[in-house]
Amino acid sequence: MFQGQVDGDPQARVYRPSPAGDPDETGLTFAESEKYRELADSVPVGGIIVGVGTARGNASVIQVASARRAFAQFLAMCARPLPIAHGIHATAVVSDDAWIDPSAQIGAYAVVEAGVRIGANSRIYPHAFVGEDCIVGESVSIYPGAVLYRDVTVGDRSIIHANAVVGADGFGFVWDGTRQQKVPQAGRVEIGSDVEIGAISAVDRATAGATRVGNDVKIDNLCQVAHNVSIGDHTVLAAFVGLAGSSTVGKNVTLAGQTALADHVHVGDGITLGGRTGVTGDLTTPGAYLGYPALPYREAARVLVATNRLPEILRRMRDLEKRLAAFEAAATEPKETE
Amino acid sequence: MFQGQVDGDPQARVYRPSPAGDPDETGLTFAESEKYRELADSVPVGGIIVGVGTARGNASVIQVASARRAFAQFLAMCARPLPIAHGIHATAVVSDDAWIDPSAQIGAYAVVEAGVRIGANSRIYPHAFVGEDCIVGESVSIYPGAVLYRDVTVGDRSIIHANAVVGADGFGFVWDGTRQQKVPQAGRVEIGSDVEIGAISAVDRATAGATRVGNDVKIDNLCQVAHNVSIGDHTVLAAFVGLAGSSTVGKNVTLAGQTALADHVHVGDGITLGGRTGVTGDLTTPGAYLGYPALPYREAARVLVATNRLPEILRRMRDLEKRLAAFEAAATEPKETE
Amino acid sequence: MFQGQVDGDPQARVYRPSPAGDPDETGLTFAESEKYRELADSVPVGGIIVGVGTARGNASVIQVASARRAFAQFLAMCARPLPIAHGIHATAVVSDDAWIDPSAQIGAYAVVEAGVRIGANSRIYPHAFVGEDCIVGESVSIYPGAVLYRDVTVGDRSIIHANAVVGADGFGFVWDGTRQQKVPQAGRVEIGSDVEIGAISAVDRATAGATRVGNDVKIDNLCQVAHNVSIGDHTVLAAFVGLAGSSTVGKNVTLAGQTALADHVHVGDGITLGGRTGVTGDLTTPGAYLGYPALPYREAARVLVATNRLPEILRRMRDLEKRLAAFEAAATEPKETE
Repeated sequence: MFQGQVDGDPQARVYRPSPAGDPDETGLTFAESEKYRELADSVPVGGIIVGVGTARGNASVIQVASARRAFAQFLAMCARPLPIAHGIHATAVVSDDAWIDPSAQIGAYAVVEAGVRIGANSRIYPHAFVGEDCIVGESVSIYPGAVLYRDVTVGDRSIIHANAVVGADGFGFVWDGTRQQKVPQAGRVEIGSDVEIGAISAVDRATAGATRVGNDVKIDNLCQVAHNVSIGDHTVLAAFVGLAGSSTVGKNVTLAGQTALADHVHVGDGITLGGRTGVTGDLTTPGAYLGYPALPYREAARVLVATNRLPEILRRMRDLEKRLAAFEAAATEPKETE
Repeated sequence: MFQGQVDGDPQARVYRPSPAGDPDETGLTFAESEKYRELADSVPVGGIIVGVGTARGNASVIQVASARRAFAQFLAMCARPLPIAHGIHATAVVSDDAWIDPSAQIGAYAVVEAGVRIGANSRIYPHAFVGEDCIVGESVSIYPGAVLYRDVTVGDRSIIHANAVVGADGFGFVWDGTRQQKVPQAGRVEIGSDVEIGAISAVDRATAGATRVGNDVKIDNLCQVAHNVSIGDHTVLAAFVGLAGSSTVGKNVTLAGQTALADHVHVGDGITLGGRTGVTGDLTTPGAYLGYPALPYREAARVLVATNRLPEILRRMRDLEKRLAAFEAAATEPKETE
Repeated sequence: MFQGQVDGDPQARVYRPSPAGDPDETGLTFAESEKYRELADSVPVGGIIVGVGTARGNASVIQVASARRAFAQFLAMCARPLPIAHGIHATAVVSDDAWIDPSAQIGAYAVVEAGVRIGANSRIYPHAFVGEDCIVGESVSIYPGAVLYRDVTVGDRSIIHANAVVGADGFGFVWDGTRQQKVPQAGRVEIGSDVEIGAISAVDRATAGATRVGNDVKIDNLCQVAHNVSIGDHTVLAAFVGLAGSSTVGKNVTLAGQTALADHVHVGDGITLGGRTGVTGDLTTPGAYLGYPALPYREAARVLVATNRLPEILRRMRDLEKRLAAFEAAATEPKETE
């Protein structure tokens, strides 16, 4: 919980967090800038968390050292985990050869196959499928409909969102002259601790060895991590990011939405890739990049601006050509007349 | 049903709609242009719906005022909803604290949690998960494997396709110097009436307040709607569209495939965005846009054309430079010789 | 199995395939180039498959005619299908009006509707949904959570990965002035033999007739195949490929990641499309293409390179303009002074 100085009705009750500008007489919002304060004051709201020394407007305010941090604490109070029955639901199909910690919870219609281990306080939600020999750590959440094929390890406190798929066959085929021969995919997937994998995202298993997702990696919805990819600790993937086979991403990398890496390329530690970047060769110098193929960010931004000026560039080019041609003609004519 | 003048065998039976050009002796197709008429006549087909005054060719024809409208009526006759058992299937797990209208149908292995309300004539298909406190209106269809986390409201006649996920955690993290701290996601999702959400699409719940999808919004497969996004009525999203956090889209907007909005940007009413548009700043003037960053459509089309002429532009530039250099050299030389 | 000349301990046991460079004392890897041989030798490993005449280094080697082929054979030995119970699991809900070959296996909580046929040796994994009148051939695998709506045919030996959706409504709406009218989707889907559909990919059913996926087509994760699309035999789609309504793709086509086809366009046999290509008009001449709009590959590569030189092009243009203006000024002045 957080503490602050109330300027308004100290008995007032608030029931939920509200975004600034949403009318909600029993909601609590926050404002750390003039713009958001105006937005928050423009509608009825139960209270506003503000910085120390900020005056009351239409609504009661709570003055705190950091409005953002206090609001995050209030959010944490209000966000409850998705409910799940205690113990193993009567309808869950759990193999006799699986080991489930007594404190773990297994929801309705979940399927847990042979050789699986589920650690303390983990939650396997309804319709989740945990395939043969998967090792799930402690305090892990596997949301409804998520599928772990087999030989997938998931570290402590990681979260796999609904309908995500971990461990499907890597995409490998060889054209033999008459048909696409499937390259067997015999590897596994290793997911670190404190990882979050978004809804409807896919992490394929390796051809041999492991596809590796480091600790504290955060993957948004609808991402694709192909076979034998390796992702370093603390790296963040926004929606629609695609990492092709055997590409490697370092630590603390940020990949903005729709960014794609070609197969086997490497992106080094601490690099940031802007929206829709396409990486076709290794990037090792720290910094931000953008574009397809990727360029250092400021250069790429100049390219984007210049690209949109291309029709103008063409006009100027034609003008130059006309003027130079006239000049050349003029320069030639006098000589002939001389 | 529709009525028209039959030119051919009035006893002929047709069993299904056919696309023009597909051979199907008991199929009924339509042709509103010369091109499609030729296509339809090129194969055996049970009948062709045509405009008034169009002559018979190889197949029987039915003359109607609007061939397209009549064919749509025939399609509607032939399209049946996916079957589902009456009432609540014996295997469905429905919380005692849920309220299900007696006319609603709940399929095999569906899970309906506490606090849920399901309105009249709604269909919750097998393996669907409807989480705590979700409010589902009347005549709603939630197809197999779709997941509603919790606190999701769905308006009347809306359709959630298979394996779509509504209400997963918004993607919010703050780097605290040692790890990616999760920003708790305590909000909800409000889906309007007559909405369609495509297979394998995701709509995240808000950090606080609601992610809002207006009435009559149509979302294709594999789309991503992030936390706190707002989408106005009648707006259409084609496949792979991504709306980043807190972006807002007005009414009657069309977003073509692979289009993306950066976080917090606004796209105003009635705007059309062409395929793969990338919006990085607000667009408020009505009209069509294209490109990354987005430009007015005709300008962007000129940019695309000019971009593909860049190698030619480079050649012309080098030519200009050579000619101008020669000219400058010539202009300098004479002076020296004078 | 494969045979070769062992140079090292002939009694040594290896248990699994390893990628070159992964330390694994009971793993077997392969090296067909100097680079991979060095990588393989840099860590402890149980053995290395090498070409004939390649000397032993740190690890035992097995000399074979083709190291790659031998390793693929070893992979095939090690890759086992995901386990599934024999026969029909007690919890599967199978319609009395479905026909299941006695050798087929149906997993826990799978749902098989009326009119379905499942061929010999096919495997329907847990939580899969096979809708009314679907015809599934022999030796087909339908992985956990995959959904086949209805009227879907799947040819022999095809694989549908987890949470893929086949047969959802095509995306068709007509704006009638007040709302988006749904165009009924009354068609079906025909999937050929030896097809692989990746995890979380979608193939929509046709408006009328069929959406067709040819034989030996390989579709990666997170792809979208819209209504009435047709894909020819042996064609390969990498992740995030989107084929809009009624587009047609020939045989032996390769579509790299994030490539998109506009509706109704055609891409002919044997064509290769590079990463993120956007096809807005028919491509019929064989060859490789790239870019948006698509250009022949070498031309498109030159465009990409030239695009990233645009800021330089602008500078050179400004320089030309300045020099030409100076020249024009100089050319005019003398005349006035004469």
